[in-house]
Amino acid sequence: MNLCIFCKILQGTAESSIIYQDNLVTAFMDYQPINPGHLLVIPNLHAAYLADLHPETGAHMFTIAQKLAQGIRDSDLRCEGINLFLADGEAAMQEVFHVHLHVIPRCADDGFGLTFPQRYFTRPSRTNLDAAADSIKNAI
Amino acid sequence: MNLCIFCKILQGTAESSIIYQDNLVTAFMDYQPINPGHLLVIPNLHAAYLADLHPETGAHMFTIAQKLAQGIRDSDLRCEGINLFLADGEAAMQEVFHVHLHVIPRCADDGFGLTFPQRYFTRPSRTNLDAAADSIKNAI
Repeated sequence: MNLCIFCKILQGTAESSIIYQDNLVTAFMDYQPINPGHLLVIPNLHAAYLADLHPETGAHMFTIAQKLAQGIRDSDLRCEGINLFLADGEAAMQEVFHVHLHVIPRCADDGFGLTFPQRYFTRPSRTNLDAAADSIKNAI
Repeated sequence: MNLCIFCKILQGTAESSIIYQDNLVTAFMDYQPINPGHLLVIPNLHAAYLADLHPETGAHMFTIAQKLAQGIRDSDLRCEGINLFLADGEAAMQEVFHVHLHVIPRCADDGFGLTFPQRYFTRPSRTNLDAAADSIKNAI
């Protein structure tokens, strides 16, 4: 059986630096950090996508991310802010197909940033925003 | 009293396109979307930072974000993936100081992306990762 790298970490057959573990989630250092202290919170039960993740586990992932964000701020690591980031799907830049929530310590001058499409700089009309809201309301 | 823009939206004195509301959280369209369907989930009770956010509310924000992510995927909006993003602190690109979780529909060719510092492309040693993990463990 070909386990994903995060399942191997959970199983102890791949190297990791674990920070926290309970019955639902595990947190460990991202091996390719944006800044020192960058960590991932993952479900213990393999779930490739958000759609596969039990909502109770998702909620708990956020709780632990919030707790660890405070831990980073309270630690001796350099941290002026925190980004939480999750990529669901290849088109959204997901690279490991086991749900993971990034907790990224940030400093103003750290060189991490976002790039936006041109349309981002044009505000849509309220009519368009209402139509998008209706599309989502109809789907839930 | 000078309410923040999100508190004004909650109060009904600022325009918005609301998708979902319950006793803890509200979701509405981002007025400056990265892609059509880009929405925000916020706590109903003002909390400027993650540190001010009741953990139960944070967990519920994620639950609703997960549900609305599926709603976007199931809607007629263009969506091949989803990013969740939260900025905590000015150094982390927070612009409105009322906690908000972005739910961003993504397509592979949509022009949104991340830029990384040069150090991102050099993997730290396991010793360094373990030291960062220890710093955070000691702080929680």
